[in-house]
Amino acid sequence: MTKSEANLHGVFAASLTPMDESLNVDDDAFATHCRRLLLDAGCHGLAIFGTTGEANSLSEKEKVSALESLVEKGIPAEKLLAGTGACSVTETVRLTRAAIEAGTAGVLVLPPFYYKDVSDEGIFRYFSEAVERVADERMKLYLYHFPQMTGGVGFEIPLIERLIEAYPDTIVGMKDSEGNWARIEEICQTFPGFETFAGTERFLLDTLEAGGVGCISATTNLTSRLAREVYELHKDGGKDEARASQKHLTELRNTMEGFPAIPALKATMRHLTKEESWRNIRPPLVEMDEARTKKLLESLPEGELL
Amino acid sequence: MTKSEANLHGVFAASLTPMDESLNVDDDAFATHCRRLLLDAGCHGLAIFGTTGEANSLSEKEKVSALESLVEKGIPAEKLLAGTGACSVTETVRLTRAAIEAGTAGVLVLPPFYYKDVSDEGIFRYFSEAVERVADERMKLYLYHFPQMTGGVGFEIPLIERLIEAYPDTIVGMKDSEGNWARIEEICQTFPGFETFAGTERFLLDTLEAGGVGCISATTNLTSRLAREVYELHKDGGKDEARASQKHLTELRNTMEGFPAIPALKATMRHLTKEESWRNIRPPLVEMDEARTKKLLESLPEGELL
Repeated sequence: MTKSEANLHGVFAASLTPMDESLNVDDDAFATHCRRLLLDAGCHGLAIFGTTGEANSLSEKEKVSALESLVEKGIPAEKLLAGTGACSVTETVRLTRAAIEAGTAGVLVLPPFYYKDVSDEGIFRYFSEAVERVADERMKLYLYHFPQMTGGVGFEIPLIERLIEAYPDTIVGMKDSEGNWARIEEICQTFPGFETFAGTERFLLDTLEAGGVGCISATTNLTSRLAREVYELHKDGGKDEARASQKHLTELRNTMEGFPAIPALKATMRHLTKEESWRNIRPPLVEMDEARTKKLLESLPEGELL
Repeated sequence: MTKSEANLHGVFAASLTPMDESLNVDDDAFATHCRRLLLDAGCHGLAIFGTTGEANSLSEKEKVSALESLVEKGIPAEKLLAGTGACSVTETVRLTRAAIEAGTAGVLVLPPFYYKDVSDEGIFRYFSEAVERVADERMKLYLYHFPQMTGGVGFEIPLIERLIEAYPDTIVGMKDSEGNWARIEEICQTFPGFETFAGTERFLLDTLEAGGVGCISATTNLTSRLAREVYELHKDGGKDEARASQKHLTELRNTMEGFPAIPALKATMRHLTKEESWRNIRPPLVEMDEARTKKLLESLPEGELL
């Protein structure tokens, strides 16, 4: 399979979720942000309701409602990858059905993350239940590997292999947020045609060169223009230019290092857009204090962002 | 406050949740199990929808439906402590309202467990939102501390103090499942009147002597008769007898050590009751294999269980 035949490929922002003062999703601001990322900032697509989108601080109903609102407001559903993973397979099934009905391009599914030290057999059964209960050939499922957030519950290589073999037309890709390049490279090499996204734009060019399809990243809410440039240079075959652009992208990404990711991104969005809804964040996350925000904003090269 | 004035006190089983072959809650079997624990096996009350009850493998709707069914089938709601903690505060609020409407004695609430390395301020805000959104003076909330399962997110002593100070009539107790006796002792001593339950019957007598109110434990699905004996002996002031009984209880509890807790309990229940619904468990958990089940059952002193 070539990348152009892939269901999804390219630069995806793991979209932030703007909220009003009552901590409800701000549907208008959310659509505005998605439109900006897709039309102005170069994203091929958006992963909504990921870790960055505070998905697990939103209830099932809130996610379905916010998704339906985005589509109503004209955000093209086929450019959306919707996070639908929950600890309960029944909730994952309902969310996934809603995402398919809304016309999204796929679903990004965390493993069940409450119970710890669970077996590969248990995770396999969870995904098997999910796929067979949804029972919809339109379903395109991307595994969401982020062991730092799920307390070690994730997708080891033999489990990925078993899932692909069992559901080759449904389980079509993954987002790997472990931050371990050797692992991403191994997955790209072991499973050609499996749509592997790196969880950080730092690995964008490496991932593309290894046969992966792109990146889905929190900080791409800010860096997608440059990430798109890397993607296009790679596509055009300009190896040196792509590498130089990646170096620049990595440097830009690194300016955000050391700050709490989601609060830092919301603070930066507030600064850049002046939109009020970026002030708000759901607990257990808290907004960044003024001193850290000042320090972050001083270090960011504004003209290159968003 | 004395123990008899506490909202809750005594021996609580963290009830298992029996399921049918489609992995739905088996409402009849659930009511049978609750009745058995309350009427025959000596439990003062039951914590439903805790870790042992596979609560996080059930959706919000499934939990509300199962709770309403229990009450319809005659299980006294005032003997139930319902787990209502979810990653999303909006879900926690709805579940808590349902538990209050059903007449339960209280709710047992996990901290939001998806995001890691969150601040005490963030957890405080989560509980503050929960209490203020539910806005019901009937609400009695027990903090559920289980850092091994929540990836380290829990309740440090200063946070407990802040929560009690902010909501003294609502946040009335906790279940501490960390397994650290020194911590439970410190909580009992630091917050007299705060209803502290140990998360294991191993610490039952120690907890009662330190001023706590009892235990809520997975294995009390099997050991509650003996745990009740310890409780009554302590109450009657028979120190030596209580200590001897606790020693026996601890030995009984220890026979189950080294097996995966929930699968082992379900396998044992299947053996003792011959009820089919104990065969079923939701992924990511998996049933114990035959060899381990055989080994466990051989080591259990049947006559002392349930």
